[in-house]
Amino acid sequence: MSRARAGDRGGRERLVVIGGDAAGMSAASQARRLRGPDELEIVAFERGHFASFSACGIPYWVGGDVAGRDGLIARTPEEHRARDIDLRMRTEVTEIDVAAGRVRARDVDSGAESWTSYDKLVIATGARPIRPDMPGADAPGVHGVQTLDDGEALLGSLARARGSRAVVVGAGYIGVEMAEALIKRGYEVTVVNRGKEPMSTLDPDMGRLVHRAMTGLGITMVDDAEVTKVLTGDDGRVRAVATEDAEHPADVVVLGIGVHPETTLARAAGLPIGPHGGLLTDRAMRVRGHENIWAGGDCVEVLDLVSGLYRYVPLGTHANKHGQVIGTNAGGGYATFPGVVGTAVSKVCDLEIARTGLREKDARRVGLRYEAVTVESTSRAGYYPGASPMTVKMLAEHRTGRLLGVQIVGREGAAKRVDIAAVALTAGMTVEQMTSLDLGYAPPFSPVWDPVLVAARKATAKVRATAT
Amino acid sequence: MSRARAGDRGGRERLVVIGGDAAGMSAASQARRLRGPDELEIVAFERGHFASFSACGIPYWVGGDVAGRDGLIARTPEEHRARDIDLRMRTEVTEIDVAAGRVRARDVDSGAESWTSYDKLVIATGARPIRPDMPGADAPGVHGVQTLDDGEALLGSLARARGSRAVVVGAGYIGVEMAEALIKRGYEVTVVNRGKEPMSTLDPDMGRLVHRAMTGLGITMVDDAEVTKVLTGDDGRVRAVATEDAEHPADVVVLGIGVHPETTLARAAGLPIGPHGGLLTDRAMRVRGHENIWAGGDCVEVLDLVSGLYRYVPLGTHANKHGQVIGTNAGGGYATFPGVVGTAVSKVCDLEIARTGLREKDARRVGLRYEAVTVESTSRAGYYPGASPMTVKMLAEHRTGRLLGVQIVGREGAAKRVDIAAVALTAGMTVEQMTSLDLGYAPPFSPVWDPVLVAARKATAKVRATAT
Repeated sequence: MSRARAGDRGGRERLVVIGGDAAGMSAASQARRLRGPDELEIVAFERGHFASFSACGIPYWVGGDVAGRDGLIARTPEEHRARDIDLRMRTEVTEIDVAAGRVRARDVDSGAESWTSYDKLVIATGARPIRPDMPGADAPGVHGVQTLDDGEALLGSLARARGSRAVVVGAGYIGVEMAEALIKRGYEVTVVNRGKEPMSTLDPDMGRLVHRAMTGLGITMVDDAEVTKVLTGDDGRVRAVATEDAEHPADVVVLGIGVHPETTLARAAGLPIGPHGGLLTDRAMRVRGHENIWAGGDCVEVLDLVSGLYRYVPLGTHANKHGQVIGTNAGGGYATFPGVVGTAVSKVCDLEIARTGLREKDARRVGLRYEAVTVESTSRAGYYPGASPMTVKMLAEHRTGRLLGVQIVGREGAAKRVDIAAVALTAGMTVEQMTSLDLGYAPPFSPVWDPVLVAARKATAKVRATAT
Repeated sequence: MSRARAGDRGGRERLVVIGGDAAGMSAASQARRLRGPDELEIVAFERGHFASFSACGIPYWVGGDVAGRDGLIARTPEEHRARDIDLRMRTEVTEIDVAAGRVRARDVDSGAESWTSYDKLVIATGARPIRPDMPGADAPGVHGVQTLDDGEALLGSLARARGSRAVVVGAGYIGVEMAEALIKRGYEVTVVNRGKEPMSTLDPDMGRLVHRAMTGLGITMVDDAEVTKVLTGDDGRVRAVATEDAEHPADVVVLGIGVHPETTLARAAGLPIGPHGGLLTDRAMRVRGHENIWAGGDCVEVLDLVSGLYRYVPLGTHANKHGQVIGTNAGGGYATFPGVVGTAVSKVCDLEIARTGLREKDARRVGLRYEAVTVESTSRAGYYPGASPMTVKMLAEHRTGRLLGVQIVGREGAAKRVDIAAVALTAGMTVEQMTSLDLGYAPPFSPVWDPVLVAARKATAKVRATAT
């Protein structure tokens, strides 16, 4: 069928991309690298105002670390078009007709609709922010931070705000990064968190360290609380956030409660959706059961190499890798995305936060018995100026000693140390094998035993002691 | 035989340790953790004034980053003795009698000698600095920097120096770190280097970047030059360093031309010595062919896991690991040191330098055909403040794509990134496998493609392109 269509266009195949952000445009660019415009036509649809931007950079733009919006744009629509990618902005795909191999798209401004046929299709529809279903959630002054439009709206709101009290709803990555951004702008910041500790991607004992640091920065932490209502003033703008038993005054509210995979189109088209609501693909990022459809980025589920289960991990770094793999395959080459180990790093002011692999509850959930250890060490040799404390938690499988996960909280040099564990997890190393890793050592960079090695030694001892 | 001797001491075994620095005292401490003083007597001999100190910290002490000598002492002799380790300072072992299982030791101050029998022996005699065989090499004002005594002597010399011109002989790790230290003390620094580029542990193209940075710091680099003579003034103190065709005025001279394994005793005792002059051990750090003798630290050769050859790599981080393994085995447990991949990190002012695995010439030497790529990236997302350039060179085996080595030169965040490659080398990963590593990403810590991933992608493309 795809050949017949390509034949209609004089032998030239058409690749259609839905979604013009990291995954979609990486796929388009990589396919273009492998196939020239005489062999492959590439059409990409983006419903928003921007393509190829760094959503991860929005907190730093809002916080003033990054001067302007344009810094976050990796490549403009014009740059894509100059490389023979027919990127159609403000054009929303409203239907995928798998049987006929075509998509229907609507010009957002004019409302005009038309069908475009494809030989190969890439679905990169991204994520949809979770919007709490409560009164006032859409009031002026309440903001998500997923798109550059969101960022501009928030900056406008901050400029217009009556006072300088901000409430951040959610204490995950986006929540803590936005708390930092608002502190930097001089706001009094309150973070309302469903859990007892921020950063539920960490175990609670490690989250506690983040909690303490945030409180130390003057952030008011409201724990174990659910926002029930956004209260508005006479002008209709937000004035406070209500939880079950309190009201928190707010001149601006930022929602950082995560995202869902945006798979409305895919669902309607009958494509396979996993338990977390994301598209299911094979290792080549091909939508299962569909030879000529690929999907990647925030709209797919990924294999967790440590647990063996599929997870939803919406991160720009994965989206870029997916795009690269899809573009290679759609361009006639061969590449795979084997899965993730669950690495993530963040910071709140100078506190660095990192995790990879399984938390205690993840291990329990998949039936893995584990030993957990926590060590305190320093970022540099203890005698070297600037040495700062670092807490490393490590999980190893009971008896086998296989590394299961690492969490690190500390100051300078803490976050990227998690990469050591990320590679070790990928390689399936045991904590005992890790004790002899030949890591870089010099006093300005590490104690003679790197903190990760200190944790590995302690985990090894515990695995040995409990192995009987 | 060992039992007979232990029998003579009422069933208590005796562990004798030669050398009271990192490897020796780590071994003693770990053996003590496993066996109490009623089971195992531990006697350690150290000929110097200090035990368990960080030689790697000396440049930072001389440079003023570390306030005093005592900061570099990890554990004092008193602390060791409080843990029932009979550490005898200023006592030099002058002979190992393997047949009789005893060592002869001499009190350095009194000259008194006596024999001590052992059931188990640990040789941790460390390294001997290479002293150039030339006139004036022993003149006042010429200094090595291996021991705390050396550091004190150098600091004394700096205090007494007539002017502020320093010549550093050698441009390896010690040379560049001492150049930084002397710059920090306000010296005019000249580095005399045998090679064309500093840091011969890097390929010359990467060494060139270090050269440029050192010149930029105001350091005078004399390349391709051999010191022929140290010239002294009327007072007998150094006044200049002569190379074949020039004289370089010097109020103080620091020798940073490396070290040799100190194996005089071991050689005399007939123990096995390798091609690099170091003791040869098995994976348990046992001296080959000797059931009750272990050796570790700067006096042994280690297996290079990438080349498959034995190398001499005198580094504190290995010495500590060796000590840990030796102490575990000597204490009746089981541990091994599998080998090294050749990781090393250093810095000269804010330039960070890192390497792991094989250089081009190492690969050629062992018959490995390779593809080499070099990429320029940044330490953080390009738009994030403080993002600084980073150069990553990567070697992969021809056809198989197995990672062979990585070298990194950059500013903040460059050095410890080499750990990613160190773990990947240990695991035997290919560069293509590395392209999907789940490394920590957030704008303050990395571009969306970590510089190491950018290099892995380029190396993968080159391996594919040349595989036919």
